[in-house]
Amino acid sequence: DFLSALDEVKPAFGAAINTLEMCRLNGMLNCGTRHAHVLKTVKTFVEQVKKSKRTPLLTCLLEGPSGSGKTALAASIGIDSGFPFIKIVSAENMIGLQESTKCAMITKVFEDSYKSPLSIIILDDIERLLEFVSIGPRFSNVILQTILVLLKRIPPKGRKLLVIGTSSLEDKILESMTLLDTFNVDLNVPNLKPSEMKQVLEALDVFDPADVDNAVTALDEEISIKRLLMLIDMAAQAGGKGTHVHQKIELGYFFKCLQMINT
Amino acid sequence: DFLSALDEVKPAFGAAINTLEMCRLNGMLNCGTRHAHVLKTVKTFVEQVKKSKRTPLLTCLLEGPSGSGKTALAASIGIDSGFPFIKIVSAENMIGLQESTKCAMITKVFEDSYKSPLSIIILDDIERLLEFVSIGPRFSNVILQTILVLLKRIPPKGRKLLVIGTSSLEDKILESMTLLDTFNVDLNVPNLKPSEMKQVLEALDVFDPADVDNAVTALDEEISIKRLLMLIDMAAQAGGKGTHVHQKIELGYFFKCLQMINT
Amino acid sequence: DFLSALDEVKPAFGAAINTLEMCRLNGMLNCGTRHAHVLKTVKTFVEQVKKSKRTPLLTCLLEGPSGSGKTALAASIGIDSGFPFIKIVSAENMIGLQESTKCAMITKVFEDSYKSPLSIIILDDIERLLEFVSIGPRFSNVILQTILVLLKRIPPKGRKLLVIGTSSLEDKILESMTLLDTFNVDLNVPNLKPSEMKQVLEALDVFDPADVDNAVTALDEEISIKRLLMLIDMAAQAGGKGTHVHQKIELGYFFKCLQMINT
Amino acid sequence: DFLSALDEVKPAFGAAINTLEMCRLNGMLNCGTRHAHVLKTVKTFVEQVKKSKRTPLLTCLLEGPSGSGKTALAASIGIDSGFPFIKIVSAENMIGLQESTKCAMITKVFEDSYKSPLSIIILDDIERLLEFVSIGPRFSNVILQTILVLLKRIPPKGRKLLVIGTSSLEDKILESMTLLDTFNVDLNVPNLKPSEMKQVLEALDVFDPADVDNAVTALDEEISIKRLLMLIDMAAQAGGKGTHVHQKIELGYFFKCLQMINT
Amino acid sequence: DFLSALDEVKPAFGAAINTLEMCRLNGMLNCGTRHAHVLKTVKTFVEQVKKSKRTPLLTCLLEGPSGSGKTALAASIGIDSGFPFIKIVSAENMIGLQESTKCAMITKVFEDSYKSPLSIIILDDIERLLEFVSIGPRFSNVILQTILVLLKRIPPKGRKLLVIGTSSLEDKILESMTLLDTFNVDLNVPNLKPSEMKQVLEALDVFDPADVDNAVTALDEEISIKRLLMLIDMAAQAGGKGTHVHQKIELGYFFKCLQMINT
Amino acid sequence: DFLSALDEVKPAFGAAINTLEMCRLNGMLNCGTRHAHVLKTVKTFVEQVKKSKRTPLLTCLLEGPSGSGKTALAASIGIDSGFPFIKIVSAENMIGLQESTKCAMITKVFEDSYKSPLSIIILDDIERLLEFVSIGPRFSNVILQTILVLLKRIPPKGRKLLVIGTSSLEDKILESMTLLDTFNVDLNVPNLKPSEMKQVLEALDVFDPADVDNAVTALDEEISIKRLLMLIDMAAQAGGKGTHVHQKIELGYFFKCLQMINT
Ligand SMILES: Nc1ncnc2c1ncn2[C@@H]1O[C@H](COP(=O)(O)OP(=O)(O)OP(=O)(O)O)[C@@H](O)[C@H]1O
Ligand SMILES: Nc1ncnc2c1ncn2[C@@H]1O[C@H](COP(=O)(O)OP(=O)(O)OP(=O)(O)O)[C@@H](O)[C@H]1O
Ligand SMILES: Nc1ncnc2c1ncn2[C@@H]1O[C@H](COP(=O)(O)OP(=O)(O)OP(=O)(O)O)[C@@H](O)[C@H]1O
Ligand SMILES: Nc1ncnc2c1ncn2[C@@H]1O[C@H](COP(=O)(O)OP(=O)(O)OP(=O)(O)O)[C@@H](O)[C@H]1O
Ligand SMILES: Nc1ncnc2c1ncn2[C@@H]1O[C@H](COP(=O)(O)OP(=O)(O)OP(=O)(O)O)[C@@H](O)[C@H]1O
Ligand SMILES: Nc1ncnc2c1ncn2[C@@H]1O[C@H](COP(=O)(O)OP(=O)(O)OP(=O)(O)O)[C@@H](O)[C@H]1O
Ligand SMILES: [Mg+2]
Ligand SMILES: [Mg+2]
Ligand SMILES: [Mg+2]
Ligand SMILES: [Mg+2]
Ligand SMILES: [Mg+2]
Ligand SMILES: [Mg+2]
Repeated sequence: DFLSALDEVKPAFGAAINTLEMCRLNGMLNCGTRHAHVLKTVKTFVEQVKKSKRTPLLTCLLEGPSGSGKTALAASIGIDSGFPFIKIVSAENMIGLQESTKCAMITKVFEDSYKSPLSIIILDDIERLLEFVSIGPRFSNVILQTILVLLKRIPPKGRKLLVIGTSSLEDKILESMTLLDTFNVDLNVPNLKPSEMKQVLEALDVFDPADVDNAVTALDEEISIKRLLMLIDMAAQAGGKGTHVHQKIELGYFFKCLQMINT
Repeated sequence: DFLSALDEVKPAFGAAINTLEMCRLNGMLNCGTRHAHVLKTVKTFVEQVKKSKRTPLLTCLLEGPSGSGKTALAASIGIDSGFPFIKIVSAENMIGLQESTKCAMITKVFEDSYKSPLSIIILDDIERLLEFVSIGPRFSNVILQTILVLLKRIPPKGRKLLVIGTSSLEDKILESMTLLDTFNVDLNVPNLKPSEMKQVLEALDVFDPADVDNAVTALDEEISIKRLLMLIDMAAQAGGKGTHVHQKIELGYFFKCLQMINT
Repeated sequence: DFLSALDEVKPAFGAAINTLEMCRLNGMLNCGTRHAHVLKTVKTFVEQVKKSKRTPLLTCLLEGPSGSGKTALAASIGIDSGFPFIKIVSAENMIGLQESTKCAMITKVFEDSYKSPLSIIILDDIERLLEFVSIGPRFSNVILQTILVLLKRIPPKGRKLLVIGTSSLEDKILESMTLLDTFNVDLNVPNLKPSEMKQVLEALDVFDPADVDNAVTALDEEISIKRLLMLIDMAAQAGGKGTHVHQKIELGYFFKCLQMINT
Repeated sequence: DFLSALDEVKPAFGAAINTLEMCRLNGMLNCGTRHAHVLKTVKTFVEQVKKSKRTPLLTCLLEGPSGSGKTALAASIGIDSGFPFIKIVSAENMIGLQESTKCAMITKVFEDSYKSPLSIIILDDIERLLEFVSIGPRFSNVILQTILVLLKRIPPKGRKLLVIGTSSLEDKILESMTLLDTFNVDLNVPNLKPSEMKQVLEALDVFDPADVDNAVTALDEEISIKRLLMLIDMAAQAGGKGTHVHQKIELGYFFKCLQMINT
Repeated sequence: DFLSALDEVKPAFGAAINTLEMCRLNGMLNCGTRHAHVLKTVKTFVEQVKKSKRTPLLTCLLEGPSGSGKTALAASIGIDSGFPFIKIVSAENMIGLQESTKCAMITKVFEDSYKSPLSIIILDDIERLLEFVSIGPRFSNVILQTILVLLKRIPPKGRKLLVIGTSSLEDKILESMTLLDTFNVDLNVPNLKPSEMKQVLEALDVFDPADVDNAVTALDEEISIKRLLMLIDMAAQAGGKGTHVHQKIELGYFFKCLQMINT
Repeated sequence: DFLSALDEVKPAFGAAINTLEMCRLNGMLNCGTRHAHVLKTVKTFVEQVKKSKRTPLLTCLLEGPSGSGKTALAASIGIDSGFPFIKIVSAENMIGLQESTKCAMITKVFEDSYKSPLSIIILDDIERLLEFVSIGPRFSNVILQTILVLLKRIPPKGRKLLVIGTSSLEDKILESMTLLDTFNVDLNVPNLKPSEMKQVLEALDVFDPADVDNAVTALDEEISIKRLLMLIDMAAQAGGKGTHVHQKIELGYFFKCLQMINT
């Protein structure tokens, strides 16, 4: 089943893009200047890898709270790069596999990338790849060591590789694992602050314009894009009108939904 | 025996409902507004999953002290949902199995659910699924990681899934395991306070109405529905009259029973 | 040898009673009102399980210091219950077996009990079943989880089960293992205090009545029934008169024995 | 090799006595009243086991610093008891064996003893049987649990058993392992204090009587019988006269030896 | 696959040099007197091993922050030594192998070296060889012990060996592992300070001479040669002019790049 | 490979001596009175074992800082003893072997020694035999227990054994492992203090007599004989004159070498 496990991870090219597309299923909304800065920086790395003769390997880490949009960002960049090899390494395809099998799969993705002139590898949700839990703390050191070595191994002559990692781990933990030292650069993908929530709500056009400010005020100081989208969708189902998406959300019902999930 | 283990967990549809029915064997009494709020919120999620096109996956966690009625609540919602696929994942069917077998069984339930348009999975007593004990603390990280990944894996196109977890673990522990971050929402199912005990006792109609207040006063500030029902049943067996259930409980004997179990 | 291990634990009915009888080899002396209270409470549970239609499962824990008489109490209740299925689960029959075998044996006892309309299972010396030691602390989590699940699993329709556990573990430890939460009730079986020692010594009739008070005064504030009986027996062997049991114990020699074992 | 391991431990009767004799190779010197008190108490237990009908099992623990004479005491009592079954369980015969094999060997010794009407088992150097080390601390919990259960298992009808354990572990550790609670009695075998050293030196008759007090004064406040005997032997080899044992030790050379080993 | 693992590590001579060359791909720039001092010291050891009859084995450790140039230094010295046997032991060739296989591979390199009159072995990135992570901390003690023993084992008569280790571990950790005690000498390879950055930038000739001081001032007090080279390369790709390497870097764009990677 | 492992450790007699000789390759210099005291004490033990009828087993531990000359001392004593059986147990011959194999090898050396009337066993570098590392701390308890038991096991009648252990572990650690209690005596082998360095330098005759005091003053308060010899050899290679050993070392170059290794 080791071989079949590898099979699963070896999708045809189209499939890889499809997987990436799933990470930005609902399109990419403008989440404000902080997200935009991250996007621009990573795109500069895409260019540097493509053009420079002295930088065959660049690695950057997107870190931020759960649901802040890290995976969507990485997937977007991958799709837009136009690189011939783009692959996402995700725990979803490795459920229940043994550490050594997971290592072999991760290593294989890197070795496959060495055959392409230009590659992007997304190490998505590194804490899940590492089977990390803060009680202990525990994690797979075998997988961590594999990743640490792969992140520094120079591709063969003429091959170029950009690695984008994503993680919700605290900086202190990332540092203890020498992940901060090992990635060339780390970039923070934050939760939305009120002004950014407003931008998102306006772009979604789900409230009567007069209601947007009140809606934002009712929210916490900080919310993830993921939770905001779930809440909007919950409120949009109100009173059996769920299927008429174009109807606006009633503010009173929005507050009720907010109260239900904040108990 | 791995296959036979899977067999055991693959009951025909009717059987699944029977298992759920066993979780609310004695009917559902009104436990007050706090329980009602939880019930209403989860039922809203049932509707959201059913109707929304943007929310193929919703996950919520019922947490509260031992015996507070979490499993009964989850089972009730499952039965009433009318969804074609409802399954309870419980440690009772996995006694003595190895971690990897348990992971395979849990994963299989999720993969089976992906074949149904609308599904509910109850992860009952997550601490038992995880083999958790606070000395250490120790638990199966393999099972935890499996659950963490499954709780975030989007079902295939056109499939929708509501996951309801139940747990008596403290918030601090749930947070350390990133379970609070991973479930979309967590809801508290509390023990009964005096006014709620009164409602339950009145509904049961086991005391002379004049005795109910005295009975409640004799109880602690807080009691689980489970312990209250056991105590009532104990008192109802007094003096060999146990089989005449319709006879009222004598207050003096009720106090004696209370004293016996509170040493 | 797994099967033969199970064989050992599957004694014919008579054998089970014999094993129980061995736990109260020297008869049951009156150890005072505190022991009597425990006895009465557990006997009430026996009745509740027998008569109630709503309580198919009751579980209670006898906890107290080493040698305080917990096992003797549990065995006595079992013998006197007249239930068709009574079994004691004890580490003595599992020496050197592997965790998984022990789990299978414990589970088998519960599943056997589900075939009898009325059953009592004694989980004797839970710390030994769990292979507990406070250095670490260490214990078999596999066995603990098995016990935790079995203690909550409702027997099939029409079957009724009373589980009596015994343990010398501290409350803090029992709580950390959620054993206190999992047993319906826990009852304390204490060591003897002076007035209770006097009752025991008078019942044994080994001292000249005039000496009993002096003997009690020489003892510690608290002693287990086990240690008291050993000491009496030691003193009774004095001066080669060991076989003439009916002769009274000389107080001076009793004090010497006491001194010998208290260094 | 499991069977051959058991073979090694199954010495014919004579062999067992020979092994015991080796533990008191140099005869038994009078080490003062404290040692004598221990000896007398254990001999009382020997009598109690022999005569009493109510005490089929007695267990006592000799604990004290390294080299204080615990094993010699236990072996002496065993030899002098005249019991038909006497066996010493020692780590020396189990070097390099696996935990489970050691458990089987220990259990076998107990089960062999159940076939004899009167038996003594010496569990020598319990810390070595347990593979104990205070760093961690670490030890074999499997062996500990085996010993804890065996120390409480009542021999079959008509069989009687005295178990003597020896250990240099601190009380705190013994208590954490519930060994103090499990043995019926624990007795301290101390190092020699000056008056006792004097008794030993006089009995050995290796110094000019006028020198004994000076020799004792030069020693520490406390010394083990083992170290004292080694030092005497070292001094007795002085100046090539080693073989003439009857010649007295020169005090000056004794001091030099003392200085050599006390750096 | 053990054998094939060994095959991988047994490159023909030329291959070894190629691997070493890859460690100083971009040539060796003058990094200031501190780096020069390290270089000179290690070269003195090369001479001592070559000439002395009394020193068949010398071992030195290059330690310093991540990316400070340790591996490049070690590789340079190896290449320039002219010794017939030079090998680098690196985790890159051991990804996913088991501890015991890694030990065998490391041991084999030493034993191969014993066949050459003059050898250099580079133990590169000792923390990766040891699978070290500071959470725990965890590492392979089997590999550590192997290295500790090999670092002290005298080569056979007439054979001489210089071992150069590199590591980014903190001194405290190296000491806890007795690595500082075991290497004959440890030498610090530091990050660049401003005056050294200036030297490097001038040697690279990528800025207008008038801009160098401003560029240095914009940098942190301390930077690794690795990060400095990456930043320069990033800035050199500005405005699509990436391929014209000889064009100077615009200071404004250099500051923008700096800001991008320092978020 | 277990058997072949044993083969390796079973050198013919001459080979054993050769191994010992390698431990004092450069001859034995006079390192001052403290080393001399240790030498004399251990030689007294050699005599005691040889002559006494009451001491069939003596064990002593040489402990001191890394490189202080412990192994050279032990080897010297072994060679000079003239005993028919002398063997050194060293981690160098056990690289990469499993714990159980190492135990078997160590045990075999002891059992071989029991066949010789007079034997010396050197347990060299006990921390390496135990695979000790202070992070954790971790070590092989299986090997420790084996050594602890072997150090107390009396050889068969007529056989005599002296065991010399060496270790750089701190006293606190040695005590936690009961190694200090288990060895009959422990002796400290210290680093050189200035007066002792002077003795060594004068004996080596590598400086102009007028320079010795200045050389000593430049050194630390304390240095191991190992480091001093390495430094002298380094300085002796100066200016290409490395092969003319009889030429004196120039003080200026000596200071430069000192500075190189003390960074
Ligand atoms: N810019 C965006 N516009 C629209 N939707 C977005 C955007 N960013 C993220 N989302 C959506 O928000 C949800 C969460 O995003 P994503 O999974 O990328 O977050 P994450 O930081 O990777 O979360 P996690 O920490 O759980 O891995 C997804 O459903 C995603 O499609
Ligand atoms: N609303 C209710 N009306 C009547 N009986 C109830 C109600 N809620 C729970 N019970 C009964 O109380 C007992 C405990 O309920 P349940 O098992 O659901 O609690 P729980 O919180 O899941 O407990 P645990 O923490 O042990 O898993 C069960 O016998 C159940 O049938
Ligand atoms: N009421 C009693 N009358 C007479 N003997 C008793 C009584 N209770 C206990 N004993 C005797 O005292 C001894 C200890 O009792 P028992 O084994 O039941 O104690 P325990 O609390 O289970 O001890 P442990 O903690 O070691 O399991 C036994 O020999 C038992 O027969
Ligand atoms: N009373 C005695 N008279 C003469 N020799 C004795 C006496 N007691 C002990 N010895 C001798 O002293 C040495 C140490 O005694 P023993 O081995 O019994 O001590 P121990 O307390 O068991 O030591 P350890 O803690 O190492 O197990 C042995 O050589 C033994 O023969
Ligand atoms: N003196 C130098 N001149 C030019 N480039 C150098 C010099 N030293 C190092 N480099 C380059 O800097 C980068 C980092 O150097 P190197 O890998 O040797 O550092 P390191 O200290 O071994 O890093 P790590 O801690 O990651 O192992 C490499 O690309 C290397 O080629
Ligand atoms: N008295 C001496 N005269 C000359 N050389 C010596 C002397 N003692 C030790 N040496 C030399 O010093 C070096 C270190 O000595 P040795 O290996 O015995 O020290 P050690 O204390 O065993 O070290 P470690 O702690 O590393 O095991 C060896 O090369 C040895 O030959
Ligand atoms: Mg993500
Ligand atoms: Mg429940
Ligand atoms: Mg008991
Ligand atoms: Mg002993
Ligand atoms: Mg490096
Ligand atoms: Mg040494």
